[in-house]
Amino acid sequence: MIMKNIAIVGATGAVGTKILEKLVERNFPMQSVKLLASARSAGTEIKVGDQTYIVEETVPESFESVDIAFFSAGGSVSQKFAKEAVARGAIVIDNTSAFRMDPETPLVVPEVNPHTLQKHQGIIANPNCSTIQMVAALQPIREKFGLKRIIVSTYQAVSGAGAEAIDELQEQSRQFSDRKNIEAAILPSASAEKHYPIAFNAIPQIDMFGEAGYTLEEWKMMNETKKIFGDDSIAVSATCVRLPVVSGHSESVYIEVEKEGVTVEDLHQAMAGAPGVTLQDDPSTQFYPMPLFAEDEDDVFVGRVRKDPNEAKGFHMWIVSDNLLKGAALNSVQIAEKLLER
Amino acid sequence: MIMKNIAIVGATGAVGTKILEKLVERNFPMQSVKLLASARSAGTEIKVGDQTYIVEETVPESFESVDIAFFSAGGSVSQKFAKEAVARGAIVIDNTSAFRMDPETPLVVPEVNPHTLQKHQGIIANPNCSTIQMVAALQPIREKFGLKRIIVSTYQAVSGAGAEAIDELQEQSRQFSDRKNIEAAILPSASAEKHYPIAFNAIPQIDMFGEAGYTLEEWKMMNETKKIFGDDSIAVSATCVRLPVVSGHSESVYIEVEKEGVTVEDLHQAMAGAPGVTLQDDPSTQFYPMPLFAEDEDDVFVGRVRKDPNEAKGFHMWIVSDNLLKGAALNSVQIAEKLLER
Repeated sequence: MIMKNIAIVGATGAVGTKILEKLVERNFPMQSVKLLASARSAGTEIKVGDQTYIVEETVPESFESVDIAFFSAGGSVSQKFAKEAVARGAIVIDNTSAFRMDPETPLVVPEVNPHTLQKHQGIIANPNCSTIQMVAALQPIREKFGLKRIIVSTYQAVSGAGAEAIDELQEQSRQFSDRKNIEAAILPSASAEKHYPIAFNAIPQIDMFGEAGYTLEEWKMMNETKKIFGDDSIAVSATCVRLPVVSGHSESVYIEVEKEGVTVEDLHQAMAGAPGVTLQDDPSTQFYPMPLFAEDEDDVFVGRVRKDPNEAKGFHMWIVSDNLLKGAALNSVQIAEKLLER
Repeated sequence: MIMKNIAIVGATGAVGTKILEKLVERNFPMQSVKLLASARSAGTEIKVGDQTYIVEETVPESFESVDIAFFSAGGSVSQKFAKEAVARGAIVIDNTSAFRMDPETPLVVPEVNPHTLQKHQGIIANPNCSTIQMVAALQPIREKFGLKRIIVSTYQAVSGAGAEAIDELQEQSRQFSDRKNIEAAILPSASAEKHYPIAFNAIPQIDMFGEAGYTLEEWKMMNETKKIFGDDSIAVSATCVRLPVVSGHSESVYIEVEKEGVTVEDLHQAMAGAPGVTLQDDPSTQFYPMPLFAEDEDDVFVGRVRKDPNEAKGFHMWIVSDNLLKGAALNSVQIAEKLLER
């Protein structure tokens, strides 16, 4: 096994620290690890196991002799440094939306479309968190029964908006008795003009608004799903909502399959054996996935699978996963593992 | 105006107290008010404005010379006493699920099907909270453009499970740092075998499980919607989820209309003038409904109206209302007002 020189850009962030943890936990063959962040964070110490790592400022030269660079510091940082890293011979695994829809850039969920890694030009994009868990759960269904349509409503955790949003939820949660006067500064989006309390609330806006009344998060789910499945004919529509949950995105998903005569049992069987998917589906024992219990877990959890009462090819299900892990850090590390296999 | 003798059964509960408040606030012509509850609550004092009311135990004789009796103390209490009240000449407005699907009993949302009040046999059912706000918002659309299909995912507040559930959320919200060990005793349903924390979580179970993997709450939404619209051909499917929100149910609703060529602007116009519906829909100013701001408000709020990217007759929207008011107490009082008009 050839050991690799690794860099993590955005190492002090919620996802960056999880990437380092997953690399260590999964015994990724690392010759060296360089933790990179903004000048402001340079000098910060990060401990994983017995090791202490010191964060350095990101500059183009940081990527000299780096083999794999994970980027998770926001789209503008990826725009600025990803090509610098590639020019110095690194393969970039980018966790921002900067290159996801670029036709040259593979958008990879290892359980779904690992073959697209072949054509990479130096940058590989990690999809949006809410997209990853949905396509990972639906892939075994799509393979066996085909997939015509997806309508998804999300229930997303604040950790997707970064560590500051987690702090904000904690702070606000204390102010139960004066809920309407809770102060808000981060959500729904740090760059938005207006901020709303998230504790004891549900905010139907994630990221900024884009075309046709959909938010950018909703467009990500709709466009990325088609790209990852390599199928523009799938009808996808999304409503994305932020909740007072720390980590763990949940999704109420309606699908229509192509094949006739498919049963709930068929879907159970297809998903039960699928890599990275765990079925939690038994109404008789109140067994179903919940975000609180998905925190720190690697898998995508699926439950509440049932047939639509009206549409013969329609089914509903409830999909939950830790958005910082399979939705971000774990998926990025799995992409790196797939690269090693080649 | 003829003054009425009123009784409220379940007067100490979350909905019962709101019914009294709404009767007073809306100047309902009351000759007398009798507050009824279990023997355990007898003697409790309830203040509304300057008036103090004393709660009495519910017995069959409580309903002598009562004109209108509001019931909101659970299905078993309604089963036991509603017919006693009717036998003594009262009209019962029942806020439980006891009689909702009884073919003899009108199931009424005053903005939607007030005409069904005519055939009442003494009992009038108030629909389930999550159903009321949805049909109230969709009625103006259905009238103008027809309605073929509804797929709804709910984001429901704990107050729908009673005052104990609100206390539980408050208690749990303090335990931020030890989330996974939070104790739970009420939700998802007091009568369920297992209980799960609601703070920092989303529970995809409301009420007990029924047929075909759907919960009773989901069956209520699917069956009651058809009955209220008086149209068995509408395809309705529901996924109901409980959130750490105090009051205010939210719903991500997908609809398909019958008419061709309908636009978002058409839907806006239809809803803007509708009684009890307030549009809050301007992405450019981040204007959309949220449950935190719907608390204590009478109306049903609608926003995020947009066209489905794939289905020409498909639209998505976000519907929010205070589940204790339009979803329960206010709708019951509005039914009583409609009765007076006749």
